[in-house]
Amino acid sequence: MDEMLLDSLSSGATAALADSLIAVKAATAEVKAAAEHSLFTANNVWMMLSTALVFIMHLGFAGVEAGFTQAKNTVNILFKNTLTPAIGLLTYALAGFALMYPGEFNGYLGFGGMLGVPEGGLDAGYASAGYTYWTDFLFQGMFAATAATIVSGAVAERIKISSYLIFTALFVGLAYPIIGSWKWGGGFLDELGFYDFAGSTLVHSVGGWGALAGIILLGPRIGKYRDGKVNDFPGSSVPLATIGVFLLWLGWFGFNGGSVLSADPGAVSLVLVTTSLAAAAGALGGVITANFMFDRLDLGMALNGILAGLVGITAGADLMSPWEAILIGFICGCVVVFSAVTLDKFKLDDCVGAVSVHLTCGILGTLFVGILGSKAGLGQFLDQLTGVAVSGVAAFTFAFGVFFLLKKLWGIRVSPEHEAKGLDSHEHGIRGYTITFDE
Amino acid sequence: MDEMLLDSLSSGATAALADSLIAVKAATAEVKAAAEHSLFTANNVWMMLSTALVFIMHLGFAGVEAGFTQAKNTVNILFKNTLTPAIGLLTYALAGFALMYPGEFNGYLGFGGMLGVPEGGLDAGYASAGYTYWTDFLFQGMFAATAATIVSGAVAERIKISSYLIFTALFVGLAYPIIGSWKWGGGFLDELGFYDFAGSTLVHSVGGWGALAGIILLGPRIGKYRDGKVNDFPGSSVPLATIGVFLLWLGWFGFNGGSVLSADPGAVSLVLVTTSLAAAAGALGGVITANFMFDRLDLGMALNGILAGLVGITAGADLMSPWEAILIGFICGCVVVFSAVTLDKFKLDDCVGAVSVHLTCGILGTLFVGILGSKAGLGQFLDQLTGVAVSGVAAFTFAFGVFFLLKKLWGIRVSPEHEAKGLDSHEHGIRGYTITFDE
Amino acid sequence: MDEMLLDSLSSGATAALADSLIAVKAATAEVKAAAEHSLFTANNVWMMLSTALVFIMHLGFAGVEAGFTQAKNTVNILFKNTLTPAIGLLTYALAGFALMYPGEFNGYLGFGGMLGVPEGGLDAGYASAGYTYWTDFLFQGMFAATAATIVSGAVAERIKISSYLIFTALFVGLAYPIIGSWKWGGGFLDELGFYDFAGSTLVHSVGGWGALAGIILLGPRIGKYRDGKVNDFPGSSVPLATIGVFLLWLGWFGFNGGSVLSADPGAVSLVLVTTSLAAAAGALGGVITANFMFDRLDLGMALNGILAGLVGITAGADLMSPWEAILIGFICGCVVVFSAVTLDKFKLDDCVGAVSVHLTCGILGTLFVGILGSKAGLGQFLDQLTGVAVSGVAAFTFAFGVFFLLKKLWGIRVSPEHEAKGLDSHEHGIRGYTITFDE
Repeated sequence: MDEMLLDSLSSGATAALADSLIAVKAATAEVKAAAEHSLFTANNVWMMLSTALVFIMHLGFAGVEAGFTQAKNTVNILFKNTLTPAIGLLTYALAGFALMYPGEFNGYLGFGGMLGVPEGGLDAGYASAGYTYWTDFLFQGMFAATAATIVSGAVAERIKISSYLIFTALFVGLAYPIIGSWKWGGGFLDELGFYDFAGSTLVHSVGGWGALAGIILLGPRIGKYRDGKVNDFPGSSVPLATIGVFLLWLGWFGFNGGSVLSADPGAVSLVLVTTSLAAAAGALGGVITANFMFDRLDLGMALNGILAGLVGITAGADLMSPWEAILIGFICGCVVVFSAVTLDKFKLDDCVGAVSVHLTCGILGTLFVGILGSKAGLGQFLDQLTGVAVSGVAAFTFAFGVFFLLKKLWGIRVSPEHEAKGLDSHEHGIRGYTITFDE
Repeated sequence: MDEMLLDSLSSGATAALADSLIAVKAATAEVKAAAEHSLFTANNVWMMLSTALVFIMHLGFAGVEAGFTQAKNTVNILFKNTLTPAIGLLTYALAGFALMYPGEFNGYLGFGGMLGVPEGGLDAGYASAGYTYWTDFLFQGMFAATAATIVSGAVAERIKISSYLIFTALFVGLAYPIIGSWKWGGGFLDELGFYDFAGSTLVHSVGGWGALAGIILLGPRIGKYRDGKVNDFPGSSVPLATIGVFLLWLGWFGFNGGSVLSADPGAVSLVLVTTSLAAAAGALGGVITANFMFDRLDLGMALNGILAGLVGITAGADLMSPWEAILIGFICGCVVVFSAVTLDKFKLDDCVGAVSVHLTCGILGTLFVGILGSKAGLGQFLDQLTGVAVSGVAAFTFAFGVFFLLKKLWGIRVSPEHEAKGLDSHEHGIRGYTITFDE
Repeated sequence: MDEMLLDSLSSGATAALADSLIAVKAATAEVKAAAEHSLFTANNVWMMLSTALVFIMHLGFAGVEAGFTQAKNTVNILFKNTLTPAIGLLTYALAGFALMYPGEFNGYLGFGGMLGVPEGGLDAGYASAGYTYWTDFLFQGMFAATAATIVSGAVAERIKISSYLIFTALFVGLAYPIIGSWKWGGGFLDELGFYDFAGSTLVHSVGGWGALAGIILLGPRIGKYRDGKVNDFPGSSVPLATIGVFLLWLGWFGFNGGSVLSADPGAVSLVLVTTSLAAAAGALGGVITANFMFDRLDLGMALNGILAGLVGITAGADLMSPWEAILIGFICGCVVVFSAVTLDKFKLDDCVGAVSVHLTCGILGTLFVGILGSKAGLGQFLDQLTGVAVSGVAAFTFAFGVFFLLKKLWGIRVSPEHEAKGLDSHEHGIRGYTITFDE
């Protein structure tokens, strides 16, 4: 080919040169498309991995909740936590996905139908963003179901499972995606300037408000507050709870890292660093605070401190320097201990500290976006306050309303006999552990 | 350089233009190679990740099997499940890999030697497909070992471990790869038009047939069927079984997602969506069916429903729309309950429901390829039936033969005393759990 | 555009051709940058995934250590293993990262300040290597913390937790990175020719020396060696230990696979194959050796055999053929059993076999680089010996010194009463398991 080109010169024809140039231009355009496809593929790999990591958070929640509650309710907890992602994904396919990223939208409410098939057919990958239509749905669907799981831990050991499952379907299918659309679907909170990178408010505090509504309407477990004292019911398995927290930390690599919505190397890896440092500092904050307050090396508060740090950094994980992330994580780790103690003062019985971790630190983390990092400023702080307040009112009202209706209709709490005996033997017919040996 | 080019024009030489064009063409070719290498790298990352995810399925199986069986046999189960991937990988390196993707092949049986070194040296990555020779081996090897693990759960609590290990080596090293080569190695079932995307038949039903052969020849555990009643032996740890199922769901991201054999964004992410929706619908199917039949919220059937949905979607995960996937998953979740009850009627004692999950739903899922999705049609349905029958006859015959020979040679079942006392104290000398406290 | 080009010819102007050529050259340069960015992105995705996998090794260690030790000390173990990565990451940000990959460096000691912000701003990805500054820090930080975790298991069940935490901060923050810099920071061991791909010596034997120093100074647990007999204290949960080992194997995909420092398809996938085959062969080696020595199917030695194989292959995972990897893994799996028995002869009480796994097999694996694989040779063998000796003297001296000082200052061992009662009730106020049912 190149020899032909040189030959053409001797015949004096520039036409040959021009033809050759046209061919090169076409080749360059093809290579450009190949390079873009390659980047798209790498981005989509990261987003699929993030999806898998967010999925495993459901096992993390199952571990934390089953580990920190009593052995007589283990199967019940696991049943709830197994069905939560299942129901969550199905309702998200049915309605949630299109409510959150709606076709027609007025900024407050929109809908685009059920999960469909993208243009170009079933396995078409559309390259307009860092990932395909399917990856988008699955990542967001796994995300959505976490909001319901947060509720599950708080209301454990006394809620009627039928009521919980109906609540979950409505919360994941309607409340979470509509509130989420106000920011992530481009709605009015987004217009306002509210910032929530990966959901300190839109996932964690929304779930936390649902949990708070639930424990208010349910009331505390029998014997939790007696004679002015707070009685701890020892959790069945501390190793299980620890596994849960480590899996949640791991899952947060995808929860926050995937929220970049591409594999952008600088942005994603910064997020992983701020996320992990906040978790590490949260562990220290929880341990130190608990040591001052309870005079013991409190593993529960080390674990909840990690979760507090993770929730706290989530709103601004892409905006903070490592040292700001450490500060945020440490403060959240301290605050989560005070929050747990305070809830107990009000006789709000949260079996696993879900409200303190997800609501208290979710709000705190959201506000930190106005205080630290590259968006800090009074205007931003006020926007953050607005976002926290608006989504809080909406989530709490919805959750309270649903639980209230369910309570009136057929009750949300099991009978005192069943609560005392444990939910497992009553509703599920098996025990969580059968560790006996004939000797 | 560009200035030189412009200068050359004033001297009237088109030769300089031609030289420059040649250089650009070379540069474009180089960039093209770079773009292709980049895509190859992204593809290979996905395949390595998928390999890791399939590996973790072995922990998932260990959890399900140890969790659902009695505490006195926990160490035995874990020993089997720890050695299964070890033996599986080694036999696959020795023979299986080259049996399954043979060099010389007549469509029925071929062999290409032991695992070797690819042309170009130890760390040469060959770019003819979406992944390297090494990734290919490791992904397929992890896959292969799962077929044996399926057997492990069914025959638990009474099989002699030596017999199990010999069976595993032969099953993974010979039966699985030879049957697999008929489709995935380009053999006669592939010629015929049989379709099995990721192995509802070639992995799951093959494993399931092995399990069925095992429990037929072993007979039920002592006391399982007494006075016309089916006695359940409570599993040692429901949390462990739940961890197992979640890890299997996670692992299926790689099992099905990796079976695309590249990171093709549209194709892989579609597969992840159909896989997860089938799992979710399977959970519902299992729970609803069990609630009708047993009048309890059966966590075991929620978990087995998830596995049933996953097995069922595996044959056509790349062909189904989300709603077809949900339908398949739901039906498999229902059917797995009936299957388990039916097996008990025939006094076929399967400790963890492996036959119902992997054989029944493996067959069902394979047939669905002829009923739903983009390949549906009578011709395809008949091809699917043929594939199911041929591989079933081969797998069952092989497994039955091996177990039968082992039974004749030195027995496959432990003594009744050891079975009653538990296999742990007899063969392993330790107990699975030692949870005691001096007070 | 192309038509314009052709038109220009009729006007006889080569100037238009030249302009067009200049544009194509610019486009090619742009596409080249895009292709490079795409490769960088894929590389960084792999490195972030590897980071996540190394993180999950901390849960693996927690599982192994809590599973293999007594139930009365479970919370204590989990507390240590939860704080280890937290403290590890924070000290690595404060000092370790810059000590290990120092700015100013004389080959023995250097420092570059605390973790900072890369040029170009917070989320700048720098493309000089296969990953960003942040990925670099986080991968290396997760790595660093594993060295301390190795110590944790050996000294369990009797060490004062305050002393352990101070030791960890100093070991991860100072000793590990300084010793590591001698090779991986380009220091004098690197100049010498010492080779350690992913840390058989620099991570595992360094951690193992720390463990050895600890158990020498602590002395054995009460009752471990009595009347000339070695008494085994049964571990609380064999399933938990098994989960731990599987997670460690999984994590090693990132530990070794990430040590390629890019997603280079051939190199990384070779490393995954050698790593997994060594683990598989290690399991066999451990089981066979233990069967000869103890006449039982020893799950503990299957699990430790896996770890031994993994540690052993780590130094040369990129240099070995599959069959060399199998040989190394098998030998390490055999040796780890002898090593454990030998330590007991010297009344060196290592609760989980950490010294045998990480020190013995770390040294062995490092020496294998001089015996097998593509670098084998007498010269290399001597370099390996030097590296083992130098880093061993440094690590042991440092660890012994710190533990010795702590022992003199306020003690490193709990009182005999607390040891007998268990560390959980004393220091942590809760029990690891509360599995009781009212019937």
